[in-house]
This record gives sequence, C-alpha cells and structure tokens, in this order.
Amino acid sequence: MKTKFKKKIIVTGCAGFIGSNLVEKLLSTNHLIIGIDNLSTGQMKFLKKASCHSNFKFFKCDLLNLKNIKEIFKDAETVFHFAANADVRYGYLRPYKDLEQNTIVTQNVLESMNRNNIKKIIFSSTGSVYGESKNFPTAENDNFPIQTSFYGASKLAGESIIQAYCEAFNFKSWIFRFVSILGDRYAHGHVYDFCNQLFNNPKRLKVLGNGNQRKSYLHVDDCINAILIAIKKSKKKINIFNLGTNEYISVKESIKVICNQLQLKPKVSFSGGKRGWIGDNPFIFLNNKKIVSLGWKPKFTIKKSIEHTVKFLKQNKWVFKKRK
Amino acid sequence: MKTKFKKKIIVTGCAGFIGSNLVEKLLSTNHLIIGIDNLSTGQMKFLKKASCHSNFKFFKCDLLNLKNIKEIFKDAETVFHFAANADVRYGYLRPYKDLEQNTIVTQNVLESMNRNNIKKIIFSSTGSVYGESKNFPTAENDNFPIQTSFYGASKLAGESIIQAYCEAFNFKSWIFRFVSILGDRYAHGHVYDFCNQLFNNPKRLKVLGNGNQRKSYLHVDDCINAILIAIKKSKKKINIFNLGTNEYISVKESIKVICNQLQLKPKVSFSGGKRGWIGDNPFIFLNNKKIVSLGWKPKFTIKKSIEHTVKFLKQNKWVFKKRK
Repeated sequence: MKTKFKKKIIVTGCAGFIGSNLVEKLLSTNHLIIGIDNLSTGQMKFLKKASCHSNFKFFKCDLLNLKNIKEIFKDAETVFHFAANADVRYGYLRPYKDLEQNTIVTQNVLESMNRNNIKKIIFSSTGSVYGESKNFPTAENDNFPIQTSFYGASKLAGESIIQAYCEAFNFKSWIFRFVSILGDRYAHGHVYDFCNQLFNNPKRLKVLGNGNQRKSYLHVDDCINAILIAIKKSKKKINIFNLGTNEYISVKESIKVICNQLQLKPKVSFSGGKRGWIGDNPFIFLNNKKIVSLGWKPKFTIKKSIEHTVKFLKQNKWVFKKRK
Repeated sequence: MKTKFKKKIIVTGCAGFIGSNLVEKLLSTNHLIIGIDNLSTGQMKFLKKASCHSNFKFFKCDLLNLKNIKEIFKDAETVFHFAANADVRYGYLRPYKDLEQNTIVTQNVLESMNRNNIKKIIFSSTGSVYGESKNFPTAENDNFPIQTSFYGASKLAGESIIQAYCEAFNFKSWIFRFVSILGDRYAHGHVYDFCNQLFNNPKRLKVLGNGNQRKSYLHVDDCINAILIAIKKSKKKINIFNLGTNEYISVKESIKVICNQLQLKPKVSFSGGKRGWIGDNPFIFLNNKKIVSLGWKPKFTIKKSIEHTVKFLKQNKWVFKKRK
C-alpha cells in the first residue's frame, strides 16, 4: 500500500553518489520521489535502500532527449537537478560531453519544468566555476571568473541558464557550488584513484602534480544537510551558496590520512608541476560564511571525511570494477 | 587574377551588421577572408562591396552542424566568431535559440578550429553578461555576475567554453563585451524599432518602459578599430575587453536625437516600468579604461552615432521589410 506523500519531487542523477544519498534523505521526510538516471555513471546498487520504499519511483532516462522527460515531470513541485558529468579531469578529451550533460541537459530540465509549471530548481554546481581565483577563501560574489576547465564552463553555463529562467518565468533557484564531496558511494576523484592504486599495489602510489595542491572536501551528509537548510531558510529568487568546510588539505597530507587508515606505507612518487592535469586548480578553498549564517555546521572534518570514504571504498571494492 | 594575400581569416556572421563591416575592413588590409553566414538575419546586400573583392569567399552555412565547417576552416590562421542570435529581447520566447546559436555554435567553431590547428579566436560577446551590475561604469573584473537574459547567459557560456579551450589547447582569445553597436547596417534594437514606428506613422511613438533606462552605444567603426587595436597590442592567453564610449544616454534623450534628425514631433507614450521587457537592463555603462589604455579613442559620440544610424535607416528602408 502506498504511503500518503507530501510533495512530488524529482531527483535527476538519482543513482549517483550525491543523488542517491539525497533520495534517501528526502524519502525519510515522506515525499514522493521520482528518480531519473541514465546509469552512465550512476549505479542501481546505490538505489537498493530507496527501491524498498513505496514512495520511490525510478526512471532510466537520458535527459539529453527533451521528449523523454516532459511526462515524467508532470505534477511535480520541485526538481533537484543533480545529473551531471561530474568528473572535471577528462573534459579536454571529450569537450562535448560537458556541454551536453551539464549545459544542454540543464536547459532541457528547465524547459520541462516550465512546460509543467514547476518553479523550483536545486542545482549542483561546483567551486570550479571560480576558475583560479586570487581570493581565498573564495566568496560567492568573487570577481568575474575566467574558466579553466570544460567542466567549470559547462556548470557556469548551467547556472546562467537557470538564472535566465528565474528572471523570465519567475522560477526560484538554489545553486550550490560544491568543493569535492566525500563519503558513502563516493566514486571518482583523487581519494578514489589513490585507493584504487593501493588496493592493486599496496607498495606504490603515483601522484599527479607535485602533491602540494591544496583541496577542500565536504562529507556528503553535511552537503545534503546544508542544501536542505538553505532551501528552508533562503527564499530569494536566486540563492547561491558555496558548500565547503573551513579547512583545506594538501594532496600530500591527504595521502598520509589514506595510508594511515589503510595501514600502508607505499613508496610515493610525484609527476611534478603545480597542476595534476589540464585545468587542475592548485588551490580550492571556498568561503562558507553565507551557509554558516543560516545555522549550518559541518559534522565531519576533512580528515574524518577521508577516513570514512577510505573505509567505504575498502568495503565496496566493486565500485572500482564498475568504472568504464 | 587573385591578389596574393597575407593570411586566411574566417569571419562567421559575415553578412551581419558588425560582421560585414569587419569583412570590408579586413579586406582592405589584404587578407583572404572566408565569410560564413546562415543568412537567418544576415543580408547578402551587406556583402555587396566585399563580394567585388577577389580575396573574399562566401559560404552559406549553418554552424550548428559541425560537419559543415571542418573543411571550410582548413588552413585558416584566425577566426572572428561574430555569428550569433544578437537580439537580447526575445530570448524567453525561444530559449533554445540562444543556446544553439550562441553556445553550441561557439563550441562547434572552437572544435573545428582545434581539428584544423587554428589557435586564435576573436569573439563578440556583450555587456549583457554583467546582468544588472551594481557598479558603474562596470569593469571587466566586476563581481561574479547573475544572468538576467537568455542572450547574456548564452554569451557567457560561449566565453567560458572559449576560456576552457585556451587552457586545454593553448588557444589565444580576444573576447569583446559590447554595448549596443550603431552605424551603417544596424538592423535591430531600439533605434531600429523607433525609426520603424516613425516611418510608418510620424505622429506616434510607443516606448517600452518608462523611458528612463540608460543605455550605452558605440559606433561600428569605433568598435572594429578597437578590436583590431586589441588584437595587435594585447597578447595574453585570454584578452577580455569592454567596448563602449565614456557616455550613456537615456531612452528619452535618444528619442529627442532621433526626432530632431528626422524633423518629427510625434506624440510619445510609455508602457511604464523600469524595464522595457523581460531581461531588459535599466542601466548599461561599461568601464572602457582597459581598451583606452591601449591607445584607442572613439571618433563618434553617442549623439553622432544615433544621427548616423537614423540617416542610414532613412536611406535603407528595405532593412525593415526584410525582417522576419
């Protein structure tokens, strides 16, 4: 028997790392959740818990095809648009992927919302939109950015189109610029890569760049709490929030945390250079005063987040095998 | 017999207002100019002078189809990417047009350049990317903008993708954020609309908004001179310039200039409100110190530019008939 639900909510990218965690959280508050994912990087295993819930419906669907979504969106109240090509690193190898999956798909979602008279969108953007800022910690109203990656460019384009819909059609939007997110179901990025290497060969670790890159991380639970607080407490037409902790950590320091957690002492080598790859940002550290002022406080330190993530990866080595 | 040329240069949007003026200027410096236009708003009449020149080749072609362009770009040295949906006003009526013509087309151009090893792009962007800035005159490094129009959003997306190509593939780019451009072949915008109304009925003029919107204008000759100076003197990886004069003018004042020029005294009525249409910006005034510091100085005042444009429109009423 179906539970009576409060609102119909769409979550795109529902089988992804953050999306699947979000779905569980939303189900716990008794909403009807319509999850959409093309399963290009999302995993049905991440939806195991959600699928047991009578208020959850899943549609395998590529949002690049506008026709696919119009009907699914019917009668929904809010869209959490978390579907994305989320890996910043390989953009230059396939520049259309970011354009399609992060920009065009976002417009398709907005257009489907408009045709169904849905007015609220929550968007997973990224600290990468600041490019290589000169100001740290970087605030939401930093200087006009210069993009350094296809990922950042495509997400900024997504943000911009959302803002145009807000202006033209009285949408409300909550745009979140994330640092790197860690925690259960984390499945790409450098902690993932390092663990993958160490599970294959515990004696060696190859690191891109000189290891002095300074990065910020946030636990997925803290991320989702921040999003829900912002939606509840910030009601402007366009609400933009950085999401990150008050800390950052060097790649070298993060390696220590990982190796301690795994009780390994590998030989570590560095490829050298300030940047690990094309478009890598040597320093990411976001100003979180805006979200903190709403009463949000992260529960996990960066160290705890990394430890938690390494533990998850150790217990779920299948996530490495599933990668394309 | 063909004149020996210096470089092969691509001009997209070559049959448009700014593009066709640019083509003539470039031909005068003995380059081989390959002009591309889909003639959706461009006019073959604008290419009459260029077409007499043996160093000019025209291709009617829609840049939305990547396959169309690869071959045309072969052996070129520089691309002036001026093809665009240039009308800010109707974005909300057809949101995919800006996405396609300004964002996707720009990526197609960049991709075709990359496949042909062309590394220099000049891009016609817009002051609309600043949204409704709080700082006047607005500088290139203004605060992180919030978009208010589909046009601005799609052009910022174009800028961003260009920047990503610069980072990934060592492109060099010159990005110009224009105020409204006036002069010969001007064919959309409010001076156009006002003249169109007055040619049809010299006794009445209906104005969108309260007439107190303050706008900036630049003459197309000054615009093209600025572009050529910037390319010559600014050689960074990414070169961003505002292009505008040190003045602005209210819509009401511009009406006086137009009516004086046409020797008309129409009854003027205003629809009211700060904004003339969805996404209209009540105040546009760009800081031009950066381009001025390179030695550029505009020859036309705003008043002269409007007078020049009204004269052109009076002598070329066919441009009104050709509009879709």
